[in-house]
Amino acid sequence: MSLASDDAGMPEPFVIVGGDAAGLSAASKARREDPEREVIVFEKGSWVSYAHCGTPYFVKGEVESLDDLLSLSPEEISERGVDLRREHEVVGVNVDSGTVGVDGPNGRFEQPYGDLLVATGAHAVTDPIEGHELDAALPMHGLDCAAAMRALLLDPDADALADVGGETYVDREIVAHYGAMAPPETVAIVGGGYVGVEMAEAFSAHDLDVHLFQRPEHVLEPFGEPVAEVVEDELREQGVTLHLETEVARLRGENGRVAGLECSGGETLDCEFAIVGIGVRPNTDLLADTPVELGDSGAVAVDEYGRTNVDRVYAAGDCAEMQHAVHGDATWVPLGLTANRAGRAIGTTVARTGSSADAGDPDSGDLDPQPGDLEPVGDVAGTAVVKAFDVECGRTGITDHETAREHGFEPVTETVTTRSRSGYYPGAAETVVSLTGDRDTGRLLGGTIVGTDRAAVRIDTVATALEADMTVADLERSDLAYAPPFSPVWDPVLTAAKVLRGSL
Amino acid sequence: MSLASDDAGMPEPFVIVGGDAAGLSAASKARREDPEREVIVFEKGSWVSYAHCGTPYFVKGEVESLDDLLSLSPEEISERGVDLRREHEVVGVNVDSGTVGVDGPNGRFEQPYGDLLVATGAHAVTDPIEGHELDAALPMHGLDCAAAMRALLLDPDADALADVGGETYVDREIVAHYGAMAPPETVAIVGGGYVGVEMAEAFSAHDLDVHLFQRPEHVLEPFGEPVAEVVEDELREQGVTLHLETEVARLRGENGRVAGLECSGGETLDCEFAIVGIGVRPNTDLLADTPVELGDSGAVAVDEYGRTNVDRVYAAGDCAEMQHAVHGDATWVPLGLTANRAGRAIGTTVARTGSSADAGDPDSGDLDPQPGDLEPVGDVAGTAVVKAFDVECGRTGITDHETAREHGFEPVTETVTTRSRSGYYPGAAETVVSLTGDRDTGRLLGGTIVGTDRAAVRIDTVATALEADMTVADLERSDLAYAPPFSPVWDPVLTAAKVLRGSL
Repeated sequence: MSLASDDAGMPEPFVIVGGDAAGLSAASKARREDPEREVIVFEKGSWVSYAHCGTPYFVKGEVESLDDLLSLSPEEISERGVDLRREHEVVGVNVDSGTVGVDGPNGRFEQPYGDLLVATGAHAVTDPIEGHELDAALPMHGLDCAAAMRALLLDPDADALADVGGETYVDREIVAHYGAMAPPETVAIVGGGYVGVEMAEAFSAHDLDVHLFQRPEHVLEPFGEPVAEVVEDELREQGVTLHLETEVARLRGENGRVAGLECSGGETLDCEFAIVGIGVRPNTDLLADTPVELGDSGAVAVDEYGRTNVDRVYAAGDCAEMQHAVHGDATWVPLGLTANRAGRAIGTTVARTGSSADAGDPDSGDLDPQPGDLEPVGDVAGTAVVKAFDVECGRTGITDHETAREHGFEPVTETVTTRSRSGYYPGAAETVVSLTGDRDTGRLLGGTIVGTDRAAVRIDTVATALEADMTVADLERSDLAYAPPFSPVWDPVLTAAKVLRGSL
Repeated sequence: MSLASDDAGMPEPFVIVGGDAAGLSAASKARREDPEREVIVFEKGSWVSYAHCGTPYFVKGEVESLDDLLSLSPEEISERGVDLRREHEVVGVNVDSGTVGVDGPNGRFEQPYGDLLVATGAHAVTDPIEGHELDAALPMHGLDCAAAMRALLLDPDADALADVGGETYVDREIVAHYGAMAPPETVAIVGGGYVGVEMAEAFSAHDLDVHLFQRPEHVLEPFGEPVAEVVEDELREQGVTLHLETEVARLRGENGRVAGLECSGGETLDCEFAIVGIGVRPNTDLLADTPVELGDSGAVAVDEYGRTNVDRVYAAGDCAEMQHAVHGDATWVPLGLTANRAGRAIGTTVARTGSSADAGDPDSGDLDPQPGDLEPVGDVAGTAVVKAFDVECGRTGITDHETAREHGFEPVTETVTTRSRSGYYPGAAETVVSLTGDRDTGRLLGGTIVGTDRAAVRIDTVATALEADMTVADLERSDLAYAPPFSPVWDPVLTAAKVLRGSL
């Protein structure tokens, strides 16, 4: 029996593993919908509800303090009636007994659950880079890591703890350690994904000599070549040295600190600071000895309501798969909105299906969810935007032809270069839009955009069209906004749709 | 027989009345699709293919010359193989004989047509304002009018013709006349619609004392109260004096020039310049004695392919109705994209259905359009954006409850105030989104947005959702873009959808 009841007929608590976007969205929503339900969140670290996506801007200095990156303080979470336990690591799940094993400050204990949400997130991959454990070699993950970076950039005489903020939660030892080190002059960024590009901007603001190493041919791989070329021009113009098609083999140390790197091709660089951002992997070790199934991606497999294959066990956020908006198959795209939305939906479902009212007699059948009780977690189109200095980039859907063919589409892509405003209006900037459609059905499959003037948010038009399964012709005929300061008569996305339709 | 053939078996030309957005889009597209077909465009004035929406920025001075507002010169149009005849006014249509009567520089003649497109546009309404014929009382319509405004703002010693540009086409007499007048210190703008608001910005840039008179309670009526309130605050902050709920009864003159105005309520203002923008009406006089039917709006009634009730007679642009994306009924929303798109679609249809290849034997039945030959003109959601100094506004769909109820909906509106970026990211600006949905079906009906940071283009998300008949829940679950510099985790539109869904 997965929903144990205590003597008073109350269900066991809704237990959540992980105190960030998905976990806390679920916790808050469940409490709001069912204020009687006990909700416990176990977080193994000290940080909760923090804006990971803001860390490059904290390192850059545009965001003053770590405190600014906290969406909710532990106190605010408690005010919502959520029983938040920081420094509590869930080390085991027993789906037969409906319990989790927890290592807390006062030792280990078993916690029964009525519903369980696994929201353990993801971790940065660093292993393939030999020397990643050296001092001043850091992954790009988490607030303590960001605190270390900013402390390192400071003069050793400065008060690093005061500078980084977040005093209540930050790892003081790390801050003190990096604060005492001599600031670097040269930094190597290993990996040209989102965070790598954002970090290049951050370190340039500190006048470092920035070197970006990317193993593939282009940065920002999921954005495709037309976007990458514009971004690479911008990075170079801003003084970043790009090393494309260059695999970093190892970091070289001196006295325990990074002193340089060596590439597989023999290229070397002297640097006193290296950050490694070559990918993230879902945190699923907790489920290794449980019947909870993972998908092909290695993340937890879930249905459209975020339910795993095990009754009353849910998964959401960076550790879970989602259904893709275009091809409908399971996919793993760890991004912030997805985590928030899925958590919120699961919180709703748990509140509706495990409410105290229904829990009187677990054998009565009342516990079976009714249609309408289940809140869809939504799908994921892989929509993403990133800023690279003054350039805005967006992407959504399927833009890679190989992926499209794997899912049975016959992809055609057209790329147009247009302006962001009427040509005669000041500030009109070059905007490059690529759209991909399916030759057989005319369906829109995906798109990318790059430009300096309001380019990124325009990708939402394409994303919305994907969510609605629009054809390229449907998009071409959409009544989008036009006024000279904001768009040409034919918006860049419409122009791309017009051209692509002509090629389908 | 509506498609007369000449001796060589060629169809009569595709004749287009009106040389602006709809007319020239149709002409260009028809020639591109069927280079054999003769295409004649009659334009009664001297201006063709000009960007009317750019005139406020020309008056403001941000756009240097009238020449900048021409999308295509007459020469470029000729290069496309279009027979453009400026200063040719079509004064009659005989659908029985398939001819139009044309007044040209060399007198009157009859022109046979194989297909006819009526793209006569709209005209500014000024009649209700007594004194509108005074000197320095101008409507807001057309390039000559814009030239007059800028000439008036100049020092009388300046070379007005050189300043306004467009020397080949501009009405030199008007420019000389207004150029010689003493510049005004105070301007009255009668009408607080798009153009009134844009003109307030334009005249403020010239340091005029700007007074805006609006009969309804708020400016920008189609945008609704939440947008209007933000815009009104901005207008006042920028030094514009607003006279809301104030009907201008008459303009007062001295020596033939405007000297002031009087309102119905007794209020008066001294001013040496007045512009009247109280609305536009479709130009349909040409069709008065023909069987071509008008819709309830007074604009030409057309089907989904832009066809009127008379065979081979089409209408498009500001003189024609369109089908509404939300309620599906005919509606009249004269805007630039609609005109361009409808003209282009009609050009395609005409090229496919009246091609020289098909015209050999008009009785063979080959002339009946085949499915697939007809290109839909698309529908119109009433999407519009406008800039009011630093404030960006957008609207789309049905937001007015009365209109919604007339079409059988049970409207519910929610308004949220959010930020344009993550709260911790510099430049995050207040953004107000209203969304309206139907309680019965959950369908999204319309929305508005206002803010200073990338607000306007976000309305395209809502417009795309309307085109796809999305529900509010569909929109809420859409995978929109998130990165701290561009959006909060929940984009402003998603937040509004989330709140509205809770109220449906």
